[in-house]
Amino acid sequence: MKIDLNSDLGESFGRYHLGHDPEVIQLVSSVNIACGYHAGDPDVMAHTVQLAETAGVAIGAHPGFHDLQGFGRQRFDLPAEEIHNMVKYQIGALQAFTKTGQLHHVKPHGALYNMAGQDHDIALAICTAIQEVDPNLPIYGLAQSQLIAAAKEIGLPYAEEVFGDRNYQANGALVPRSQNNAVLTDPKAIAQRTVNMVQQQAVTAVTGEQVTLKTDTLCVHGDNGAALEIVKAIRAAFAQANIEIIRF
Amino acid sequence: MKIDLNSDLGESFGRYHLGHDPEVIQLVSSVNIACGYHAGDPDVMAHTVQLAETAGVAIGAHPGFHDLQGFGRQRFDLPAEEIHNMVKYQIGALQAFTKTGQLHHVKPHGALYNMAGQDHDIALAICTAIQEVDPNLPIYGLAQSQLIAAAKEIGLPYAEEVFGDRNYQANGALVPRSQNNAVLTDPKAIAQRTVNMVQQQAVTAVTGEQVTLKTDTLCVHGDNGAALEIVKAIRAAFAQANIEIIRF
Amino acid sequence: MKIDLNSDLGESFGRYHLGHDPEVIQLVSSVNIACGYHAGDPDVMAHTVQLAETAGVAIGAHPGFHDLQGFGRQRFDLPAEEIHNMVKYQIGALQAFTKTGQLHHVKPHGALYNMAGQDHDIALAICTAIQEVDPNLPIYGLAQSQLIAAAKEIGLPYAEEVFGDRNYQANGALVPRSQNNAVLTDPKAIAQRTVNMVQQQAVTAVTGEQVTLKTDTLCVHGDNGAALEIVKAIRAAFAQANIEIIRF
Amino acid sequence: MKIDLNSDLGESFGRYHLGHDPEVIQLVSSVNIACGYHAGDPDVMAHTVQLAETAGVAIGAHPGFHDLQGFGRQRFDLPAEEIHNMVKYQIGALQAFTKTGQLHHVKPHGALYNMAGQDHDIALAICTAIQEVDPNLPIYGLAQSQLIAAAKEIGLPYAEEVFGDRNYQANGALVPRSQNNAVLTDPKAIAQRTVNMVQQQAVTAVTGEQVTLKTDTLCVHGDNGAALEIVKAIRAAFAQANIEIIRF
Repeated sequence: MKIDLNSDLGESFGRYHLGHDPEVIQLVSSVNIACGYHAGDPDVMAHTVQLAETAGVAIGAHPGFHDLQGFGRQRFDLPAEEIHNMVKYQIGALQAFTKTGQLHHVKPHGALYNMAGQDHDIALAICTAIQEVDPNLPIYGLAQSQLIAAAKEIGLPYAEEVFGDRNYQANGALVPRSQNNAVLTDPKAIAQRTVNMVQQQAVTAVTGEQVTLKTDTLCVHGDNGAALEIVKAIRAAFAQANIEIIRF
Repeated sequence: MKIDLNSDLGESFGRYHLGHDPEVIQLVSSVNIACGYHAGDPDVMAHTVQLAETAGVAIGAHPGFHDLQGFGRQRFDLPAEEIHNMVKYQIGALQAFTKTGQLHHVKPHGALYNMAGQDHDIALAICTAIQEVDPNLPIYGLAQSQLIAAAKEIGLPYAEEVFGDRNYQANGALVPRSQNNAVLTDPKAIAQRTVNMVQQQAVTAVTGEQVTLKTDTLCVHGDNGAALEIVKAIRAAFAQANIEIIRF
Repeated sequence: MKIDLNSDLGESFGRYHLGHDPEVIQLVSSVNIACGYHAGDPDVMAHTVQLAETAGVAIGAHPGFHDLQGFGRQRFDLPAEEIHNMVKYQIGALQAFTKTGQLHHVKPHGALYNMAGQDHDIALAICTAIQEVDPNLPIYGLAQSQLIAAAKEIGLPYAEEVFGDRNYQANGALVPRSQNNAVLTDPKAIAQRTVNMVQQQAVTAVTGEQVTLKTDTLCVHGDNGAALEIVKAIRAAFAQANIEIIRF
Repeated sequence: MKIDLNSDLGESFGRYHLGHDPEVIQLVSSVNIACGYHAGDPDVMAHTVQLAETAGVAIGAHPGFHDLQGFGRQRFDLPAEEIHNMVKYQIGALQAFTKTGQLHHVKPHGALYNMAGQDHDIALAICTAIQEVDPNLPIYGLAQSQLIAAAKEIGLPYAEEVFGDRNYQANGALVPRSQNNAVLTDPKAIAQRTVNMVQQQAVTAVTGEQVTLKTDTLCVHGDNGAALEIVKAIRAAFAQANIEIIRF
């Protein structure tokens, strides 16, 4: 058994520092690097790509809305074609910093990820943008969401993403962050939960139902010490369960 | 005899419209497309690349300072490494909009072009950025300037650029726009002058000296009706002198 | 009888030119000047305020979302407090360019205007921002909308705004631009319609109902020649009907 | 004897956090709040003004170049009139967040401060911007610099600013940060030095000369723990020397 561990990196900007990139990069198999729209700048991108190439982790683009102040978490009511173009722009910009000129994957960020998970037009706008830049570039999208549906529809490779620290609804959607029980925080519980998810390719919804879920890649965070503890607990549990951590 | 005719395109932004792109694109052999920093946005870039691909002209990136309000014409006192990274970012972003994922050339814009023409470190920062993205991508730089010197130094292909509507100094530099006699405006005089430049690979300086000048590509403008008249006069004069207009 | 005629001005940015400000300013009694978020920049603001002071028209702030590319027409899903602060910021910025340090009114722009017309929390966020800067500063808001309700609620002066070139629904809301019959274009018809609106303080909805409507101020446009023709037709009709055009 | 202690505050942006504002605000008599151009955003400005009003410290605007990525530290080669307008814009924006609608002072930031200290046209552009917004608003400028000269020239109130942790040249200018001996770091030495500066209204240059220097206000930093230690050492030394810390 195996799974990819991915994390968001390169979210600093100018003099503003964010995240524990050098530590978290040692714990994952792939990283999603901000492309200068919701976070990151050309200098941060150059530095982060170099860090990832040195660490040997898979490099993905992490495009988001053009909203540094809101960190890409506000919903922007943009036409699908504008989303298509802004995703293309950001993928290209990041590609230029890699030694090979090629990326491993693309994962939309924040509000863009959430909106695309529910809206077929937005999902399609993103998937076609990726495909037109590189037809072999997989998208990382929420398992069972519109992003996966759109990728299937146009023949774009995809990885279904799961979250170990988030509760799920019976329909496979995440419990929204606005609700109290959206997020799990106990490292041991999260670790055990992720092992179960990988072994059973399913998760228990907050309402008790068993939800089938493909688990190609697991999203982990590295913004603070507690987040790093969770990643370490997951890695330890995976080692014990003989689940290999390897890029998608 | 032959020469490339290049022009800046894709300088609109959002609701703001600039230039006569559809007309000028019919008159040139290569275009320099703004990359969203000093002008342009992802939608304008997508549209302009499509226009250029349809017209069959060579597509180049036109990176500039991140300064929409100043249109990339203000000098920014940035470290060479930041210039290197911001050029890479913009080249990559534009590449993503082309069908092949490849560009024909790169031409720095405005203050960046002028500063790089005089400053070896900036010129080198730009040339290495291009080379790391694509070692076969030529730079368009002011003939005999530091940009050309830097390209030669690292083995990057280059095209030496000349201006038919600008006066030259004895050392091959342009007369600065701050001076009265910087710019020529008579279409016939400019057309004759450009023919001479191509035939003799030289130009007469304002101070009377004959300055040797390689003329790989000629920069023309399309922002207004008068500019288009000049391009048409040049094309007519080239046709009569059997100078072929063809991409570099 | 009297009415205020207001128009949006100062929407240029850097090298990008928009609107026919010098012409339209001669035809109206008050102007709404963009504040650098969805359009305008400090130089344009300085110039436009000077233009308005010379022409003797009333100067209002025209705050919008921080979205130059979308010209403030995209909906941003921001917390009410962020809207409150960004409105305050823009009002203050414009005030600084006036001789007296005081404005005549504030009118939200584009998507912000539309959202605030329907959402009480956003309307309140805007009205309290204005009141905290200057309790005597009236808001211009869509007649009968949430903006007017919020102003009444907190005791902020207000002007109810009507549109002569837009069709109305039976509930007093505008027919959305997405519908075919949203906009009227015939100058004579628009002029007659506005005279009726002022005389009857009411408008006939597309569905035939007579809708009571307070008409403190009428919005007119100056982006193009056709728009200017409409303003001239309105002014002529007002003159004939003895309706005085005067600032609110 | 008395002196003002000022510090830069409100330099966070969106999700990006910078500085120890709540701690440093307890140690100073006046603060310079970023206005959204080189740092800060409307939410940060609202919060920081409230913090300062609660703490009872004097509130000043801290305008800078429009350059979040470079934190206002890169030199921009802008026309004096654009600098004039961008300073006015930022002063107005900050004013709107204060309870009284009035500020206590204005202090230019970073490269703008340094350029204005040496260039009379830039200094004048800033001083006239302040004066046109509020003729009673003092400027904080480097002691003996062009900023002070320009303020005197137009009759704008001013406070001459000194730095306890920077070495001076014989002509009263600071030793540039590019040189090794530009910055002092020992809290005790800095504290003793500042006491001497206030008592003697003079400083010893690196080359040994005694330089006369008016010391209206002393700039202190609060970005990190070491900086806070220095401020505490200065305050202790001032208390012992009976130097009162009070707003200008």
